[in-house]
Amino acid sequence: MGKRTVSRRRFLQATGGGAAALWVPRRVKGYSAADMEAMTGEGRMEADVSKWELDTPALCVDLDALDANLATLQETVAGNGIASRPHAKTHKCPAIARLQMESGSVGICTAKVSEAEVMLEHGIERVLMTTANVTPFKIERAMALTRWYPGFVHATDTPRNARDLSDAAQAAGVTASVVVDVDPGGHRTGITPGRPALELAQLVDGLPGLRLLGMLCYDGGSQHVHGFQERRAQTLGRLAPAAETCQMMRRAGLNTEIFSGGGTGTYNIDHETPGFTDVQVGSYVFMDAQYLAIGGATDGDVYSDFEPSLTILTTVLNSQYEGRVTTDAGAKACTINQPWPIVKGESGMSYRSGSDEFGTLRYENPSRTHQVGDKLELIVSHCDPVVNLYDQMYATRDDRVEAVWRIAARGRSA
Amino acid sequence: MGKRTVSRRRFLQATGGGAAALWVPRRVKGYSAADMEAMTGEGRMEADVSKWELDTPALCVDLDALDANLATLQETVAGNGIASRPHAKTHKCPAIARLQMESGSVGICTAKVSEAEVMLEHGIERVLMTTANVTPFKIERAMALTRWYPGFVHATDTPRNARDLSDAAQAAGVTASVVVDVDPGGHRTGITPGRPALELAQLVDGLPGLRLLGMLCYDGGSQHVHGFQERRAQTLGRLAPAAETCQMMRRAGLNTEIFSGGGTGTYNIDHETPGFTDVQVGSYVFMDAQYLAIGGATDGDVYSDFEPSLTILTTVLNSQYEGRVTTDAGAKACTINQPWPIVKGESGMSYRSGSDEFGTLRYENPSRTHQVGDKLELIVSHCDPVVNLYDQMYATRDDRVEAVWRIAARGRSA
Repeated sequence: MGKRTVSRRRFLQATGGGAAALWVPRRVKGYSAADMEAMTGEGRMEADVSKWELDTPALCVDLDALDANLATLQETVAGNGIASRPHAKTHKCPAIARLQMESGSVGICTAKVSEAEVMLEHGIERVLMTTANVTPFKIERAMALTRWYPGFVHATDTPRNARDLSDAAQAAGVTASVVVDVDPGGHRTGITPGRPALELAQLVDGLPGLRLLGMLCYDGGSQHVHGFQERRAQTLGRLAPAAETCQMMRRAGLNTEIFSGGGTGTYNIDHETPGFTDVQVGSYVFMDAQYLAIGGATDGDVYSDFEPSLTILTTVLNSQYEGRVTTDAGAKACTINQPWPIVKGESGMSYRSGSDEFGTLRYENPSRTHQVGDKLELIVSHCDPVVNLYDQMYATRDDRVEAVWRIAARGRSA
Repeated sequence: MGKRTVSRRRFLQATGGGAAALWVPRRVKGYSAADMEAMTGEGRMEADVSKWELDTPALCVDLDALDANLATLQETVAGNGIASRPHAKTHKCPAIARLQMESGSVGICTAKVSEAEVMLEHGIERVLMTTANVTPFKIERAMALTRWYPGFVHATDTPRNARDLSDAAQAAGVTASVVVDVDPGGHRTGITPGRPALELAQLVDGLPGLRLLGMLCYDGGSQHVHGFQERRAQTLGRLAPAAETCQMMRRAGLNTEIFSGGGTGTYNIDHETPGFTDVQVGSYVFMDAQYLAIGGATDGDVYSDFEPSLTILTTVLNSQYEGRVTTDAGAKACTINQPWPIVKGESGMSYRSGSDEFGTLRYENPSRTHQVGDKLELIVSHCDPVVNLYDQMYATRDDRVEAVWRIAARGRSA
């Protein structure tokens, strides 16, 4: 009995999801990713599990902090007379997109068509894809989305691309909603503001397969400018040509119901740009070490408008050398973005995740030290690429796991 | 008919894998990740597809280069009287582990127990896990592997951990094979060489649940030292205490059938360390910009022992600004490791993937320029974390896709 009742084949099947622990008689407490997934119905936990019992590395989101961030954002933008259209590239998680829509957002953004597919399939029906699709293959995929989800919005930034979109829409028997992507000066994507953008909008307006909804102008280069006044001055300056373009479109009788842009760094500034309608905030739900460092309107040193909700749990693997310990969360769990992750609740120590498999925690003037097997919690360096390393995140409140959320668009970079 | 015969529900099901293109009447050529997976039986392609038809970003491995790298490594180490035990943390791909075993490797290594589970489940039965498991939960998972796969080898680096392993082995009714992890001086993992390591080996040898197989000493800090002679001098010096430990173990009558270590940077040096048995090469299968830069024994400028086989295909999204284009492969497709990715076959241009979603290619004295929709191929910056971003890689020969390989241990960081 015992060992022999489980055939090797059945073991192989059972472990298909890396879930060896599921059938092994359990003597110790602890939960792998596969265990946790097996314990959830519709994402909700059916058992009482502390986050400290999770196998590590594990990605956690604190629900109290997340709720507070959703409320702060929505109250601020509503008070300023604009809307929010959060960017799902940050979380890649339909459960969070749903919370954003419930909190009052007018839609969500995605960067890639594969992300849009995931969000639309999961019931988030108002999706604006902020990147132009340029290959016939991706344009066809995007038109398939328009066919089923009329709330899907395409971006375009060249006349040639607008004509391609119109041809594909007509071939698919749909009318595609389109915004013109305007360059804020970074020359990364978008068309030059002023006459080139206006003429593109006029072209879109006249093409048989397209319906012009307005424009977008994402000023990524201003989001992490240190200091609120410096950030404000820079982004208002960089958005001025886009605002003028918006006025030109209005004077020409074109639809400007969407003038989307901005982000977590400028969410309380963007309403000052004339014609601006909605802010594409991403990181505000999670916060990270990069945003904490930029300073805010009320606190010049720390950007405290939003609370850090996203953390990585890690375990100490080696504590036998002076002044340092080694953990199980390296670059594959944390990325190598800087500033490095911050050990939550501690001081006088610095974490580095430069090694692929291991993290290094060095003590300078530490508030505590750690032994092999201890778990610690890290505030992430840069939330977007960190989330993209995990298949699921654990939604916790008061350190209890309330839900396991699939990061369903993880890896959707195409 | 047409549109109406496909219900919305069926569309939702069909697109579950992001495979909208599967049912849409296809007018254009192109293949998404889901398309490619649907076209393979047992990983082998059933259709004739050029890699240039793949939707991007896409991860490709050139089979001619991969084959050459496997042969070069194996011939060299065999000629030097040692073996290879390649590290699967690099590729996380059972198909490549199988090729490595077929080429003559004595086993493979993994860094994490979740990686070991994947490799063992896929028929790679000789796995040495190079990291000690320190939590009761992970130790229990590892002992479950020993129960089914006697070829699984554990690492340990403290007496306390060795006792924990022995207790868990006895509770699981198994005898666990163990190597002692010895620190080469980086103080990251491993026990101090000399007496501490010897005493740990003696303890392991005497514990009832364990079987001592020898030791490992991974000198990660020497792998990327620039210049062959500098690299050789450093690693031989750093491994000397471990070699002395190995001799002490032998004199004490302990088993030293395994003395594993080294990597792609020292594969043709490690045999000079007395007692050394096998090299834990990882990157040699793929190569990357980081390793190309270190220089080799025959070519001081470029490490040309192995051929770059791993590339990322990317598409130009914007070419309307002077001196640069924007592509669809940013940090989420390439990581932000440096040196930055190299555009294969071109010169006078530099690529950066510092932005999450977009790559930037700047022209200095370019061998060619690119237009919107053009595809280009990048040699990756640092292969390990890049592979960890993708669910599959396309195995190509002469630019035809021969197989789609699942990166089955992708994201297995626990």
